[in-house]
Amino acid sequence: MADKKMVESITSMEEDFAQWYTDVVKKAELMAYSSVKGFMIFKPAGYAIWENIQKQMDKRFKETGVENVYMPMLIPEGLLEQEKDHVEGFAPEVAWVTKGGLEPLTENLCVRPTSETLFCDFYKNEVQSYRDLPKIYNQWCSVVRWEKETRPFLRSREFLWQEGHTVHATGEEAQERTEQMLELYATFAEEVLAIPVIKGQKTEKEKFAGAKATYTIESLMHDGKALQSGTSHNFGDGFAKAFDIKYTDKDNSLKYAHQTSWGTTTRLIGAVIMVHGDNEGLVLPPRIAPVQICIVPVQMQKEGVLDKCFAIADELKERGFSVKVDDSDKSPGWKFAEAEMRGIPLRIEIGPRDIENNECVFVRRDTREKTTVALDNVADKTSEMLETMQKEMFEKAKAHRDAHTYTAKNYDEFRDTIENKPGFIKAMWCEDMACEDKIKEDTGATSRCMPFEQEQISDVCVCCGKPARKLVYWGRAY
Amino acid sequence: MADKKMVESITSMEEDFAQWYTDVVKKAELMAYSSVKGFMIFKPAGYAIWENIQKQMDKRFKETGVENVYMPMLIPEGLLEQEKDHVEGFAPEVAWVTKGGLEPLTENLCVRPTSETLFCDFYKNEVQSYRDLPKIYNQWCSVVRWEKETRPFLRSREFLWQEGHTVHATGEEAQERTEQMLELYATFAEEVLAIPVIKGQKTEKEKFAGAKATYTIESLMHDGKALQSGTSHNFGDGFAKAFDIKYTDKDNSLKYAHQTSWGTTTRLIGAVIMVHGDNEGLVLPPRIAPVQICIVPVQMQKEGVLDKCFAIADELKERGFSVKVDDSDKSPGWKFAEAEMRGIPLRIEIGPRDIENNECVFVRRDTREKTTVALDNVADKTSEMLETMQKEMFEKAKAHRDAHTYTAKNYDEFRDTIENKPGFIKAMWCEDMACEDKIKEDTGATSRCMPFEQEQISDVCVCCGKPARKLVYWGRAY
Repeated sequence: MADKKMVESITSMEEDFAQWYTDVVKKAELMAYSSVKGFMIFKPAGYAIWENIQKQMDKRFKETGVENVYMPMLIPEGLLEQEKDHVEGFAPEVAWVTKGGLEPLTENLCVRPTSETLFCDFYKNEVQSYRDLPKIYNQWCSVVRWEKETRPFLRSREFLWQEGHTVHATGEEAQERTEQMLELYATFAEEVLAIPVIKGQKTEKEKFAGAKATYTIESLMHDGKALQSGTSHNFGDGFAKAFDIKYTDKDNSLKYAHQTSWGTTTRLIGAVIMVHGDNEGLVLPPRIAPVQICIVPVQMQKEGVLDKCFAIADELKERGFSVKVDDSDKSPGWKFAEAEMRGIPLRIEIGPRDIENNECVFVRRDTREKTTVALDNVADKTSEMLETMQKEMFEKAKAHRDAHTYTAKNYDEFRDTIENKPGFIKAMWCEDMACEDKIKEDTGATSRCMPFEQEQISDVCVCCGKPARKLVYWGRAY
Repeated sequence: MADKKMVESITSMEEDFAQWYTDVVKKAELMAYSSVKGFMIFKPAGYAIWENIQKQMDKRFKETGVENVYMPMLIPEGLLEQEKDHVEGFAPEVAWVTKGGLEPLTENLCVRPTSETLFCDFYKNEVQSYRDLPKIYNQWCSVVRWEKETRPFLRSREFLWQEGHTVHATGEEAQERTEQMLELYATFAEEVLAIPVIKGQKTEKEKFAGAKATYTIESLMHDGKALQSGTSHNFGDGFAKAFDIKYTDKDNSLKYAHQTSWGTTTRLIGAVIMVHGDNEGLVLPPRIAPVQICIVPVQMQKEGVLDKCFAIADELKERGFSVKVDDSDKSPGWKFAEAEMRGIPLRIEIGPRDIENNECVFVRRDTREKTTVALDNVADKTSEMLETMQKEMFEKAKAHRDAHTYTAKNYDEFRDTIENKPGFIKAMWCEDMACEDKIKEDTGATSRCMPFEQEQISDVCVCCGKPARKLVYWGRAY
């Protein structure tokens, strides 16, 4: 019955996952390419997902005492250079404003790639006494990094994100906030995006430029590649020393402050696509779907059909669901395919015969399972089905992740696995960066994290064979 | 009783309005200066007002069918130049990115001063058929204009705003949307910000670069200066012709599309400050106040006082109010002054004797009027008082605006009024730009708008004495 034209134009994910991804982001109308190389346009269906992420994450932030602020988008060259590791990390990939109005600037300004330096410059003046601490600030904005290769949502020269920047009296407090925000990200990914994550610490090699320690949540895409999905950094007092952020403590002594930063980006949209999508298109978890229910009238010219559809829509709206009635002049088959392509969690089909029988048909997007539901019971059944779907999408993603998580005890096993079984590899590491470099060089895999949940799966480093006590998740990554 | 230290440090508005404004934005902790000249930092109390504006305005947008999108922040030079009037208007005040990463760019990119050109470039590809129309898109973002003189919230090199950009099949539809959005802005300003506005059309001289017609809402600040508070533009098919945005109509003929754009900015925060503020600081209308009620415990070390304060706070939160209990270790007097400085609409004072008598004291921020309220009746009374306050703040601002709106029938009268009576001047105009130029040159006053509500207060132009049929609002403006 379904009109297949729309669907047939997607490459299947088994055939070419990268092309499948590109097809989905275009056909589901999430984005468009702009005529500025490496910069993308968020179309309504794509931006609405980001709005839902923002709304729900921001609420969770505020429950932990976060306050939102807004910093300038431009950073003076001298300010960017103030922390040595930080400037080394970012200078090669920033965009420079050199002219304002008709005149050259006396000091070049870069478009923020991240805002540590601006926050430090601000905190230097704001923080004088222990009474001024802590400050738990965050901003939602866009940043620019001059990437060479770009891909929609995953890597682009401009992206949207939130960046939290906090300042504390003690190192303990900073560490606590760093872990608290990582935990918040993990819970958000699992509860809202239905994406299971591994929580852990980045190695020295992979940590943020200027950080003392970086923590991460790592998720696994359907093709077995890893995606860093959120990071939280403890800066210790490194930035405070570089920027002279000092406060007078209760005992009247002058102390350096301790800082953190933490961020998530529009990559999360890419993660949702690549974890849940299928060959019919996007599949959105109900909690993040801008439209949760699409009602499709069948034989809509027949008297009473559209009225019934809108009555059901009103009932569902009253219960707080986001609903759309597709009363366009396309065929029902086309509408089914379109709703599937756009990843709308639940489709409700209502035709004249259904109305006669006081029923309608529910179709779940994830399983495509059909259920006949009494018209009197639509709201309760919707609520139940969306909750089930949210839960089962998470479980399915977790089962996939677990089924694609391997262990390797020696280097042959490691190389064989990375070549033939896309996924995470758990393997021991001696903590020498040389081994990490060699693994990346040989296999393209990077250390994703040292998970909080450690296991001793062997006593020696998977690369050099020397004694090893750290378990690391490895993988090829986006 | 009140600790006056904090308050005494504000300049009185009668003495020096500009200094009063600067003092308020700093003391109410709305913003901080950054070390990038002309760029400001939105501190939590300032950004929270913008969040409230966004939330409520965005809801109204969506009710009229607006969808949010996000466009790149950078515009290629060639794209900016595509519409002649537009580039002439904006080129002198944009910031140019000339280097990305370590290499010079082959084409310079400007940081968006506004995004008409990007939307046109996008619509050119998106719009093919009458079926693709209309598109009613908006984005919330920041823009950069290289202003020479800057002032917090009112004029800065970067500011936050929303910019709507729509594309329609017909000129009538575009005109309808232009007027609809102006009406939405006017209603928002009056209902939410409690700021009365004059709706009207801009003259040719003052219209937007590239527009066919620009409409505006104009408000009057406490010092008698005007503030353009929102604009809505009808582009006709001018941009469509410059960017080749064509669609195939039902009759199979190829037609140019018609477009609009409309915007409001963080200036609205400046308007709120300058319309409602007083010599004790900020005064926020309840509907826009991030904290609506501040509960101040008196003798808070006494048993039961803090408990009562938090119990009342919980009750008010349950009713949907935003409440803060100030349990810091400052004196009650200091807390009163601070809550006033920050413009919190309602202060509730609760001490041991109040609790004994089953009552507390309400203090309205705008009138500073005190009312004793029974503890059982706090929620209802709060609701009633905030509604009254919202209404009366609007009425007070309107009375002030009306009392400072003058008429002038000849040039002497005009010049005398502009020198001695700060406010709007209503005067007839012959529609010759030479008179507009002369008035600006002689008096510093600009035409604010040709109001929708026209009156024939004289038959001749206030400047040249020739026949005139247009009533114009004039004023010195921010």
